Amino acid sequence: MSVRSATTRVLAAVTILFLLPTSGAAREPQTSAFDLDNGNAAIEIVIPAATGPLLSTLNPGDASLILRITTLTNNAWFDAIAPYHPMAVGVSSRLGRRPAAERATNRQRNIAILYASFHMFMNLLPQFREEWRAMLRSAGLDPDDRNRDLASPVGIGTRAAEAVIASRIHDGMNQLGDEGGRRYHRQPYADYLGYRPVNTAEVLRDPSRWQPDLVTSGNGVFRAQKFVTPQYGVTRPYSFRSPSQFHVPAPRNSDAARNPSGYRRQAEEVLRASANLTDVQKLSAEHFNNKLQSLPTTVIHLAETRQYTLDEFIFHEFLTNLAAFDAGIVVWHFKRRYDAVRPFSAIHYLYGDRYVRAWGGPGRGTVNDIRGAEWRSYLDTADHPEYPSGSAAFCAAHAEASRRFTGTDALGQSVTVASGASVVEPDVTPRSDTTLGPWPTWTQWARDCGLSRVWGGVHFQDAVTEGAALGARVGEYAFRFLSGHIQGRPPAPVAG
Amino acid sequence: MSVRSATTRVLAAVTILFLLPTSGAAREPQTSAFDLDNGNAAIEIVIPAATGPLLSTLNPGDASLILRITTLTNNAWFDAIAPYHPMAVGVSSRLGRRPAAERATNRQRNIAILYASFHMFMNLLPQFREEWRAMLRSAGLDPDDRNRDLASPVGIGTRAAEAVIASRIHDGMNQLGDEGGRRYHRQPYADYLGYRPVNTAEVLRDPSRWQPDLVTSGNGVFRAQKFVTPQYGVTRPYSFRSPSQFHVPAPRNSDAARNPSGYRRQAEEVLRASANLTDVQKLSAEHFNNKLQSLPTTVIHLAETRQYTLDEFIFHEFLTNLAAFDAGIVVWHFKRRYDAVRPFSAIHYLYGDRYVRAWGGPGRGTVNDIRGAEWRSYLDTADHPEYPSGSAAFCAAHAEASRRFTGTDALGQSVTVASGASVVEPDVTPRSDTTLGPWPTWTQWARDCGLSRVWGGVHFQDAVTEGAALGARVGEYAFRFLSGHIQGRPPAPVAG
Repeated sequence: MSVRSATTRVLAAVTILFLLPTSGAAREPQTSAFDLDNGNAAIEIVIPAATGPLLSTLNPGDASLILRITTLTNNAWFDAIAPYHPMAVGVSSRLGRRPAAERATNRQRNIAILYASFHMFMNLLPQFREEWRAMLRSAGLDPDDRNRDLASPVGIGTRAAEAVIASRIHDGMNQLGDEGGRRYHRQPYADYLGYRPVNTAEVLRDPSRWQPDLVTSGNGVFRAQKFVTPQYGVTRPYSFRSPSQFHVPAPRNSDAARNPSGYRRQAEEVLRASANLTDVQKLSAEHFNNKLQSLPTTVIHLAETRQYTLDEFIFHEFLTNLAAFDAGIVVWHFKRRYDAVRPFSAIHYLYGDRYVRAWGGPGRGTVNDIRGAEWRSYLDTADHPEYPSGSAAFCAAHAEASRRFTGTDALGQSVTVASGASVVEPDVTPRSDTTLGPWPTWTQWARDCGLSRVWGGVHFQDAVTEGAALGARVGEYAFRFLSGHIQGRPPAPVAG
Repeated sequence: MSVRSATTRVLAAVTILFLLPTSGAAREPQTSAFDLDNGNAAIEIVIPAATGPLLSTLNPGDASLILRITTLTNNAWFDAIAPYHPMAVGVSSRLGRRPAAERATNRQRNIAILYASFHMFMNLLPQFREEWRAMLRSAGLDPDDRNRDLASPVGIGTRAAEAVIASRIHDGMNQLGDEGGRRYHRQPYADYLGYRPVNTAEVLRDPSRWQPDLVTSGNGVFRAQKFVTPQYGVTRPYSFRSPSQFHVPAPRNSDAARNPSGYRRQAEEVLRASANLTDVQKLSAEHFNNKLQSLPTTVIHLAETRQYTLDEFIFHEFLTNLAAFDAGIVVWHFKRRYDAVRPFSAIHYLYGDRYVRAWGGPGRGTVNDIRGAEWRSYLDTADHPEYPSGSAAFCAAHAEASRRFTGTDALGQSVTVASGASVVEPDVTPRSDTTLGPWPTWTQWARDCGLSRVWGGVHFQDAVTEGAALGARVGEYAFRFLSGHIQGRPPAPVAG
C-alpha cells in the first residue's frame, strides 16, 4: 500500500466525502490484520485509533492544541526509530544504536512506534485510556508489557515516549494546569500569564485591539471567546531559542487612532472580498482553515508520488509538524504583543447601521442591504488576536520545510470538492464538482493558503504577509534542526 | 401501562442508571405497536422521539430555553385535546367542540396530540425535520397529511399548533433572531436588549455584580459565559400581566460596598456548606440541578399513584411547565435588574491567596489548603446572575401548582441513587446506594430543592428564599389560569 501522512486518517474520517481522492485505492479501509514486517503502524494503526478521541475533544481549527499533540507524538515516533537508523539521534533521548539486522523489515520500528504512541496518548489524552489499550491489542501487542530494555523495541518505544514527556510536560503550555502553583481544580492548558482583553464581546472600547467574538451552536446559548493558550508564545521551541529573535513589525493599518485611512482601507479590502466570493475562494477558505486537511494532504501526495519508506514518512511528517508548531510559537508571541483587531470588529465599528455590500450568509450570495453591524465573515473567526496570521505561518513553514526536505519547490497537488460539499454552505456550494489549485509549486500553494484568510474574512492582508514571512524562516530552522538529528549531528537551537 | 410525565422519557434516556425506578415495570421499553385507542401518545411516542434531538442541542440545565420548548409543546397538546373535553377551551385557540362519542377512547385525542407535536417541533427545532417525520410514521400517521378540517383530529392538532406558533413566535424570546429588525445572520434567541456585564471573566471590577464564569470541557479551549436570554424577563407570561407586578427586594447581602459584613457572612455560609458536604447533599444538589429530572419525576410519581387519565396527564403536565415558565420570567426580570454576584466571584474576591477549608474537587473531599482564588462550587455555575434563584422559583411554582391541582400537600416521593452514580464524582459518590428524601410533602421537597442550591455552591440563601416566595405566588396564578381554561371560563391574566 502507498504511504500516507500521519494525520491522513484523522482527516479521512471527517472529510472523506469532501475530498475526492486522487488515488482511490489508497483510501480503501484496512481489513486484513496488520503486517508488522511490511506495514506502517503510524498510518495503519495509530492514526485511525486517534481519530475519534481527538476530534471528540478538539476541532480541526484548534491549532495550538492540536499541533502540540501531533508534534509531540511525531517526536516520540522519531526518537523510537532513531536507534534503528544508521546515524539518527533522538530529539529528546539517546537510546543507543541497534544492529542493522533489526531494520531488515519494519517490524522492530513498528513495535517501537506503537509503544511510543501508546504512552504518549496515555499522557496527552488520558481520558481515552481504553481506546489506547485497544489500539495496542489491535496490533497483537500487550498494553501491560512494562519492558524497558533498550535491546527490545517495546523498551525503546516506551522510553522514547518517557523522554518526550519528561522534556515537554512543563514546556510552557501548562498541560497539567499546575503553572502558578495551582493545587486544586487544575485546568489543563489554562492561561497563567493573565492575558486580559481590553474589549469585551459586547463593547469595543479600543477599535485597534482584539475583541472576543460571540460563539453559539445555534441553540440559544452564547459564549464569548477567550484567547486560547496565550502561553503558547512562551512555550519552548525545538529549532530556535526564543520568539524574540524574530522581528514582526507592528500592524500599522490596524491602528484606528493614528492611521484611520489605513484602518479603513484594509477593512474595505475584506468587505470587497466578501462581496465578490467565488466558489473556488469559498472552498479554498474552508480547505486551508482545516488544519487536519490542508497540511497533511500535501504530505500524502508526496508520499504517494515519491514512494516514501517508513523512515522517510516519519521524518517528513515530524518535520512539517515541528515546523508549524515552532512557527505557531512565534505567531502567538506576536499575537499577544500586538493584540490586533479582527476584521469583524473593524467592520462593525466602521459601518454600524450603514448598509454594506457583502456575503449575506449561507446560500444568500452577495447582498446590498446588510448593515455593517450585522456583517459576518465567511469562516468563523478563531479565538485569538488577528496579527500575524497563524495559518499563513503554518503553511509557509510547512512549505519551506518540505521544499528543503524534497529539494524542490515542485508540489503538483490539486483537490477536488464534490458538488454541494461545502461545510459553510452545504448542498449549495459548489454548484458542480470543483477543483482547487492545481498547485504546481509549494509557492503557489502557500500563496493561496494566505489569500484564503482574506477571502474567508478572518484576516487582513498584512497579517498574511507577515505570517508567511516568519513561517518561511521557521521552516528553514526546522529543517536544519531535524536534518541535523537525522544525520547524527544535532545542532544547537538557532539563536537568530 | 401506567401513565408517566411527558418529560419522563427525556429523563429516562439520560438518567436510567442514576435513578433506581420506584416501579420497575413502568420502565420497560415499549416494544409493541402504539395503541391509539388506549395509549398515551405524549408519553409513548412524542417524548421518546424528542429526547435525542433536544439533548443533542441543549443541556438539562438550560432552563429558559428548555422550559419554553416544553411549555409551548404542552400548550399545543392542551389546545389539541380541548375540543374533545366537555368544557375546556384552548389557551391559544378556539377549535370548536367535538361530540362525546369522539372521546370514548383516546384515539382522536392521540392523533390530535401527534400532529400538534409534529408541527410544534418543526417550528421549534426544524433542524431535526427527518426525526419529526419519522415520529409520525412510527404511530402509523402521514407527515404529509395537510388536513385542516376541524372535524378531523389531524386538522385539530395541526391548527392547535398553528395557533400556539402564531401566538408565541414573537413572544419576546427572539426565537427567530429577528428582533431589532435584524435581517442577515440571524441568531435565534440572541439578546436584543443589550445587556452588558460590568465584570469580565478576568476582572471583577465590582464585587457586587455578576461576573461571567469561565467554562471549558477540559480540552484547553475556554469560553466566557454570556447571560443567557436576558429577554426572557420581557417575554409574555401566560398567567399574569407583567413581572413588574412582583416585588423582590434588592439583594442587600450582595452589596459589598454598603454591607461588607453581610457580604462576608453569606460567602462564609457557602464556604461552610462546601467544607461540610455529605453524600446526600452532593446528590441532592445534582438531582435538583437537572431540570429534566427533579421536576418531572414528581409528576410521574403522582400520575402512577393517582392513575391519571390522558386528559389529567396533559393538564398536570402543562400546568407545572407553565408555572415554571412563568416563574422564570419573573426571575429573569429581577436577575437582569439586580445583576448580582455569584458565590464563586465573592469567594475569589474575599479570600484570594489565603487558604480556606472547602471541597477540593472530585474525589478529594474537604481540604484545608485550597486558596480562595482556586475555589470552585460543587455544581457548575449557570450562565445568569445569581439573584433570585431560578431553581428555587421553579420548584416552588411547580409545588404550589401541583398542591392546588391535587388538593393536597402530600407527595411521598423518594429517589434512590446507585453507588458511584454521581455525575460530579463518578465512581466515588455515593459510597453505597443512597436515598434522597423521602419527601412526604411538596413543602419538604421544595425546601430541599432550595437548600441544594447553597449546598451546590451556586447560590446564597437570600436568593433561594426570594426565589421560592415568588415561585409559590406564580404557581397559584398558573393554577387559576389553567383551571379557568379547563372549566371553559378562561380568566384574564392576573394583574397583581
